Amino acid sequence: MAIRYPNGRRFNQQKSQNKKLPSKELTYSNRGMTLEEDLNETNQFYLEQSIAVIHKKPTPVQIVQVDYPKRSAAVIKEAYFKQASTTDYNGVYKGRYLDFEAKETKNKTSFPLQNFHDHQIEHMKQVRNQNGIAFVILRFSLTDEVYLLDAKHLIEFYDQKESSRKSIRKLDIENFGFLIKIGYHPRIDYLRIIDSVYFQKES
Amino acid sequence: MAIRYPNGRRFNQQKSQNKKLPSKELTYSNRGMTLEEDLNETNQFYLEQSIAVIHKKPTPVQIVQVDYPKRSAAVIKEAYFKQASTTDYNGVYKGRYLDFEAKETKNKTSFPLQNFHDHQIEHMKQVRNQNGIAFVILRFSLTDEVYLLDAKHLIEFYDQKESSRKSIRKLDIENFGFLIKIGYHPRIDYLRIIDSVYFQKES
Repeated sequence: MAIRYPNGRRFNQQKSQNKKLPSKELTYSNRGMTLEEDLNETNQFYLEQSIAVIHKKPTPVQIVQVDYPKRSAAVIKEAYFKQASTTDYNGVYKGRYLDFEAKETKNKTSFPLQNFHDHQIEHMKQVRNQNGIAFVILRFSLTDEVYLLDAKHLIEFYDQKESSRKSIRKLDIENFGFLIKIGYHPRIDYLRIIDSVYFQKES
Repeated sequence: MAIRYPNGRRFNQQKSQNKKLPSKELTYSNRGMTLEEDLNETNQFYLEQSIAVIHKKPTPVQIVQVDYPKRSAAVIKEAYFKQASTTDYNGVYKGRYLDFEAKETKNKTSFPLQNFHDHQIEHMKQVRNQNGIAFVILRFSLTDEVYLLDAKHLIEFYDQKESSRKSIRKLDIENFGFLIKIGYHPRIDYLRIIDSVYFQKES
């Protein structure tokens, strides 16, 4: 029998990114949370501690039909998922605009570029032109390693797609990016990296 | 017969905010566009001209049921509108974080505070604490006057709700806010105000 997420998506136990590695203990770094859940928890922590105001944008949906039953809330009866024209996360930190996308892979040695699409890359270029801070958070889920990579590098690799590049080597991510230490609360303290990379230089 | 918007909402010709004033010529300032359409057009102009990167966030929707027909796109069959936890618009301008909500009223002499809710006011406070630029764009639709009011003032008025304040007088909006000149392209050039109010002082 198919198990389904609350949103109706099929849960595939074989393919699930949350699959526990057989011989690994349950630790902070492997509690079966998705990258999105970890980042929501992290952003909630930042908000509560008045460190930053960063939110995930709602999933864009094209609404086609809505019913208005008497005495109850409007029900959307037909709608479709739309491709996002921007990245998923943005907000403000110490007056600066922050903008990022977060993706995970089960690959071990490279990160597939198909995780991103043209609109998002274009958006990151525009944000950089406005002097915003744009980056991606990349997770290698089998080893639970999370990297922050400035959009500048992602854009360079992405623009090599036409010359048949399909992925970024993990070596390059290690080289150009920054490993984010996984913690308990917050889980993915990416602002620590932002501080050292984007604010130290400037002050 | 009820006329409906593409999203299913009922179109009320009597009550429509787009109603033309009887004796008024069709001018730039009265083309029957909603504030949202005008702002989307304006933000598109800013984006194309590389002036700023500002987007409206998608409407937040709680998805309950999704169908996956073979050979075609996933269809959302049951979903509900959620209250937004933030404002509708944000983005980056000259490195700074911009955040605003836009509302219109058919009142002539005051702007009802019920257009805003606690979450949004709380969000604006948080953005201000992070040194972001937070404001509201308020339109008096019968006269097509559009004002930019810093969130600081909205917050002050809103916090008087407990002492039974229900609206902001138009006089106060004129006094504390800035009238935005309505144009053709872009329609609502709010960044001109942002420039003179937030950037001149600082430099």
